[in-house]
Amino acid sequence: MAEASQTTRDGIVAAAGELFYAGSIRDISVDRIAAQAGVTKKTVYYHFRSKDELVAAYLDARNRPTLERYRRWAGKGGSMADRIERMFRSLQKAAKSHEWNGCGFTRVAVELADLPGHPALDVARNHKRGFEGWLRQDLADSGYEDAGELSEMLMIILDGAITRMLVHRDPHYAAVAARAARRLLSR
Amino acid sequence: MAEASQTTRDGIVAAAGELFYAGSIRDISVDRIAAQAGVTKKTVYYHFRSKDELVAAYLDARNRPTLERYRRWAGKGGSMADRIERMFRSLQKAAKSHEWNGCGFTRVAVELADLPGHPALDVARNHKRGFEGWLRQDLADSGYEDAGELSEMLMIILDGAITRMLVHRDPHYAAVAARAARRLLSR
Repeated sequence: MAEASQTTRDGIVAAAGELFYAGSIRDISVDRIAAQAGVTKKTVYYHFRSKDELVAAYLDARNRPTLERYRRWAGKGGSMADRIERMFRSLQKAAKSHEWNGCGFTRVAVELADLPGHPALDVARNHKRGFEGWLRQDLADSGYEDAGELSEMLMIILDGAITRMLVHRDPHYAAVAARAARRLLSR
Repeated sequence: MAEASQTTRDGIVAAAGELFYAGSIRDISVDRIAAQAGVTKKTVYYHFRSKDELVAAYLDARNRPTLERYRRWAGKGGSMADRIERMFRSLQKAAKSHEWNGCGFTRVAVELADLPGHPALDVARNHKRGFEGWLRQDLADSGYEDAGELSEMLMIILDGAITRMLVHRDPHYAAVAARAARRLLSR
């Protein structure tokens, strides 16, 4: 793709991302995304065959930065429980922002729960599998023999804490989640 | 309310509930709900001032039956960990049905995450507070001194397991959740 074309595409994905994350996948129209990106609707459809494809591209663009943010939050030093606690502490801080609106991947999957063939669902699942894979590796590297089982438990706790923080608009669940994780990781 | 009128209202709520749970709050129109309930749109608006109020009524009607279902799943005998395990085992079975579509309360809260004043959000929160209160009481009755903290942890695990089962369409997370709960409840 030519550089200018790639820049336009990135701008559309960024505009879509802002609107989708702050609002609702189903309510945000391609018209609004085009206006936000400062391009015509025709240009959006030059880059994306459909709105569905654009939703998938929005999540895909979010995949790596999200994982990297969580890794940065966890940091490198200390025990696995320390890293998970730091991760949850940063998440708790992030959730205090008015702009925080839960996990974008979960929200897309929940909003599109009645559309099993939607391409964004695969992207959401891949993201969560990637996240779980990172935890499993870190657990294995830390000497946990049941790294597979523990990584699934930690993902349940992470998704549960985010869900509860979103539903109740109460970030303290991140601290509860960190303590639950520490208990599960104790040996 | 006269009996016939109450029956009509219940029929509208039941029709709305079927459509909302299987589909999406935002996509299902009052027209479709009226058609499903076999009444006119005017009749719907005689009973509910707005679609928002109908969404709240749908969740409210679901509150008690949902709690009772989970209590029934948990049963009475055995330890707290046994009851939680039975609850998750039944949830896992329920999630295998094609009609299972996650937690209706969470899904409404997620779908309406950009509408903080929506009346259904309060109903969703009340439901989850009621659920947590039941667990806290059961934990306290079972002699757990940290019943408050543990009930929050169990709710995180429950919401997390349901979220993951929905996103991945994979009921095995309920079994992982049960094992995590058992570890947290061990003393």
